[in-house]
Amino acid sequence: MKLEEAISSIGELDTDAMAKASKRLDSLAKPLGSLGKLEDLVKQLAGITGKVYPDVDKKTVIIMCADNGVVEEGVSSCPKSVTAAVTRNFTRGITGINVFSGLAKADIVIVDIGVDDDLEYGVILDRKIRKGTWNIAKGPAMTREEAIRAIETGIEIVAGLREKGVNILGTGEMGIGNTTTSSAVACALTGRPACEMTGRGAGLSREAYENKKRIVERAISVNRPDPGDPLDVLVKVGGFDIAGLVGCYIGAAAYKIPIMLDGFISSVAALVAVKFNPKIRNFLIPSHTSAEPGTRAVMQELQFEPMLNLGMRLGEGTGAALGFLLIDAAMAAYTRMGTFDDARIEQYVPQE
Amino acid sequence: MKLEEAISSIGELDTDAMAKASKRLDSLAKPLGSLGKLEDLVKQLAGITGKVYPDVDKKTVIIMCADNGVVEEGVSSCPKSVTAAVTRNFTRGITGINVFSGLAKADIVIVDIGVDDDLEYGVILDRKIRKGTWNIAKGPAMTREEAIRAIETGIEIVAGLREKGVNILGTGEMGIGNTTTSSAVACALTGRPACEMTGRGAGLSREAYENKKRIVERAISVNRPDPGDPLDVLVKVGGFDIAGLVGCYIGAAAYKIPIMLDGFISSVAALVAVKFNPKIRNFLIPSHTSAEPGTRAVMQELQFEPMLNLGMRLGEGTGAALGFLLIDAAMAAYTRMGTFDDARIEQYVPQE
Repeated sequence: MKLEEAISSIGELDTDAMAKASKRLDSLAKPLGSLGKLEDLVKQLAGITGKVYPDVDKKTVIIMCADNGVVEEGVSSCPKSVTAAVTRNFTRGITGINVFSGLAKADIVIVDIGVDDDLEYGVILDRKIRKGTWNIAKGPAMTREEAIRAIETGIEIVAGLREKGVNILGTGEMGIGNTTTSSAVACALTGRPACEMTGRGAGLSREAYENKKRIVERAISVNRPDPGDPLDVLVKVGGFDIAGLVGCYIGAAAYKIPIMLDGFISSVAALVAVKFNPKIRNFLIPSHTSAEPGTRAVMQELQFEPMLNLGMRLGEGTGAALGFLLIDAAMAAYTRMGTFDDARIEQYVPQE
Repeated sequence: MKLEEAISSIGELDTDAMAKASKRLDSLAKPLGSLGKLEDLVKQLAGITGKVYPDVDKKTVIIMCADNGVVEEGVSSCPKSVTAAVTRNFTRGITGINVFSGLAKADIVIVDIGVDDDLEYGVILDRKIRKGTWNIAKGPAMTREEAIRAIETGIEIVAGLREKGVNILGTGEMGIGNTTTSSAVACALTGRPACEMTGRGAGLSREAYENKKRIVERAISVNRPDPGDPLDVLVKVGGFDIAGLVGCYIGAAAYKIPIMLDGFISSVAALVAVKFNPKIRNFLIPSHTSAEPGTRAVMQELQFEPMLNLGMRLGEGTGAALGFLLIDAAMAAYTRMGTFDDARIEQYVPQE
């Protein structure tokens, strides 16, 4: 599906399925609403899939991997080569997302959408737009055509996974320098200052952190991204990984597949997607509040309150995989708890 | 172990094991500290058990079930008989804690420590102190001897589970009216007002909620519990379930077993335990922030920031069981992630 088609095809949640799920939840032997967000999750899943008993047994985390030209400004504590090294390590079962997706019985899909190295393809998908973006401190990250291609890559990957029966998605990324591009995108979209949106990433010195904030400000002042045009923001100060994730969200909404956010970068991409079409928000599930300071502001913009508060800042989709564990818990309660009839208890009368 | 002996036997965490765990965590191929609270968990588990690779594979949630005389004041939206009905349902696999403990591969231990009914024992343990406490709005909940017996029941149950090889515990409870007693205990210990510590429980009407706050205030003014004497607070305004949970925390600390809190009632019991001996805090693991409004204040007093923010208010140990899932995630990352050597990446230099 092309970008324009995908965006215009996004519909509403199925309120009938949601009402039926709600009724079932209220029949369970527990105080009304006492499972909190887990109940909201069940209703949302029903609304997205149109099924009162949604299937969420085939889980996949999509990891968008790409390099960022802005790394030459000294915004990261790691050398650029770490992007390719970690991308390779995703195939070796030793990274954080390998461990957590294993726990959650989720597959991972590793996408080279712009890594600055020649990788070995097969397990890693070759969707390279280019070997990393240009330096956003000096000019745009990419062309308009490249941004559209990166987004459509995300949409296409979602379409392919859907063909394979995947029924719930998570997002992850790997890209040295991508907290810098994400901060710039978040500043551009929200108008908030760089100091609020920029953190120390993987572990910057105080001095390097000050530099990173200046670079984010410079990226904005040099490029003047149009806050009303999410594509322009991606072109000017984004990254291929972020654009690919935007495509995943648009695709998930177009194909009616629930999709779990991860941390800062992933949430910034969600904010971009929602600027393309606000209805996309209904298809997104927040997982955790990352320790990266901009996360809270982005979650506020999205009006999300994540379920997990672990102070994590690892990326890779690790938070999304942990979020899958809570999806399983929500569905287990929904399908396996007894009703008031089963429990031989009179339903507590809801009062006002 | 008797109460006094247990309290005086509580030691410090094993800092050597913690330092070794910390070193292992820092060798993993990820930004230093980027797994946040999951890393803190691993270090705490090492400190509690004295093992660099702690075993947390045998999990059990202890559910203390008891009735509360204060229910006659109309503080609950459910009839008292629900305590016995749900306690029985714990044996039938249909409750929330049955579902979530199943997911977490945890056992449950159901303790009748004061249910106002004649239950069938076997799966349910008969540790009944009395068929429910007296009405705290009119006088003390129990005698000093009863409070000590209830606490020692908790200690003894922990000792028995330890004999069976259980290496991590969770807490849960069932008792109509126990948000009222918990609010009273929390007010007594913290000096905070009833309005801050009292919520609508399972679903009170506005009028009944106002009444509940007045009852909590009355329980305090009638009994004048001594904030400096946690036993006196339990005697005057507690419940057998809360006292039993206090014993679980004291026992867990004495026997060096990590123990997971659940929601409001469970956290109030933890606050009581910590008043007996502040070292107990080191053995406690917070799981979720319950929707019951007093939880935040109690967590502040304990200086805990729970990992889960689900707006749950079901009790039974459901939040503790979900917390076990995160223990598994922490241990999986710790034991299965590759090191920087494995990852063929130079360790990112920690900077200041």
